[in-house]
Amino acid sequence: MFSTQSQSNSDSPSSSSVSVHSAGSVHRIKFCQWCGGPAKHEIPDGEEKIRAICTLCGKIAYQNPKMVVGCLIEHDRKILLCKRNIEPSFGLWTLPAGYLEIGESAADGAIRETWEEAGAEVEIISPFAQLDIPLIGQTYVIFLAKLKKPQFSAGPESSECCLFELDNIPFDSLAFSSIFVTLNLYIEDVKSGKVKFHYGTINKRLGTGPSDIRAFTLDYHLQV
Amino acid sequence: MFSTQSQSNSDSPSSSSVSVHSAGSVHRIKFCQWCGGPAKHEIPDGEEKIRAICTLCGKIAYQNPKMVVGCLIEHDRKILLCKRNIEPSFGLWTLPAGYLEIGESAADGAIRETWEEAGAEVEIISPFAQLDIPLIGQTYVIFLAKLKKPQFSAGPESSECCLFELDNIPFDSLAFSSIFVTLNLYIEDVKSGKVKFHYGTINKRLGTGPSDIRAFTLDYHLQV
Repeated sequence: MFSTQSQSNSDSPSSSSVSVHSAGSVHRIKFCQWCGGPAKHEIPDGEEKIRAICTLCGKIAYQNPKMVVGCLIEHDRKILLCKRNIEPSFGLWTLPAGYLEIGESAADGAIRETWEEAGAEVEIISPFAQLDIPLIGQTYVIFLAKLKKPQFSAGPESSECCLFELDNIPFDSLAFSSIFVTLNLYIEDVKSGKVKFHYGTINKRLGTGPSDIRAFTLDYHLQV
Repeated sequence: MFSTQSQSNSDSPSSSSVSVHSAGSVHRIKFCQWCGGPAKHEIPDGEEKIRAICTLCGKIAYQNPKMVVGCLIEHDRKILLCKRNIEPSFGLWTLPAGYLEIGESAADGAIRETWEEAGAEVEIISPFAQLDIPLIGQTYVIFLAKLKKPQFSAGPESSECCLFELDNIPFDSLAFSSIFVTLNLYIEDVKSGKVKFHYGTINKRLGTGPSDIRAFTLDYHLQV
């Protein structure tokens, strides 16, 4: 549901500069979603950030970062990638991943997204990476996984799903910086002989688009 | 801002059975927060879950889990805990933690919360745990950290902050299941001589309150 959500949701990674400004833009909230009252934009007592507060019922509409969960699937020393059949990044390659839903764990969400986008039944092996992207209010949580059966097929959001040898990953046609970072970390780990867990922050360069996938710095990189 | 948000936010861990039902309750959304139009509750084309959709502008109000970020601070073989000065779980002990804000990384959010709740300046050592709580739409991300200076003091949301030896952790007076799990995993790791990264799902037993901190199962526990 990554792509579907991203079409309508302002917090999506769909458009760089728009997302940059809208992900945290409290001023876009003009009404209370619970009572319909007009919102004011002020710092509530005891807080430090401007929030949208209902002038009728007083409720505060908090906005928080979203988690994108997905799988890095190893099979015969190859990695499964999906070619996006939807915007953003139509025609570019990604890992199966999407927004976590309320009521599911990150692991279950990653398994669901892999089924929806790649028609693949997977088993989680271990957590692989948490990559925060503060500028767009997103955190990627990627798990290492393996195929339960050696079968997969493109779901409606993908035009194609393929296994790529590590030497043949299409680094010039990847959909997002988060995927670029994840695959690079994985290849480094495989070369070093030990796959680890990585935490890091992807700081996108201001004014760059989602297709400028190399326009970032990876900060605060910690590995276990 | 964990506590402050939790006072007004229905997705908060503030009340067990209320949270259980409201965290994912799309039916509570009755108006569009962008245009004020009345919401309908339907499955959008190409999706699978009921969403609140604006009958005027067509926008969908997605609801997603929230991340709670915090620090497990080691100092002289002791752990820093805060006694909560606010509801929920007033008077019970917790790690400094709170809701991640848009625009900050999980590590920066954990450092900020530690400063706000424990008046402590910390340096992150490594990621320690990701614990999902699907029933209330929350994910805890806890980092190991150390004090930059050996000073701390209770912030407004805490009545007291203390260093506890591992043998003296107040397990019968902890505020949340997530904290109970985190401290148990940490003590096991210390005893085994290797502190790892843990991923797991805390499945709370239906109908139990936030103070029933042992009423859960830890599922899908993976460690790196």
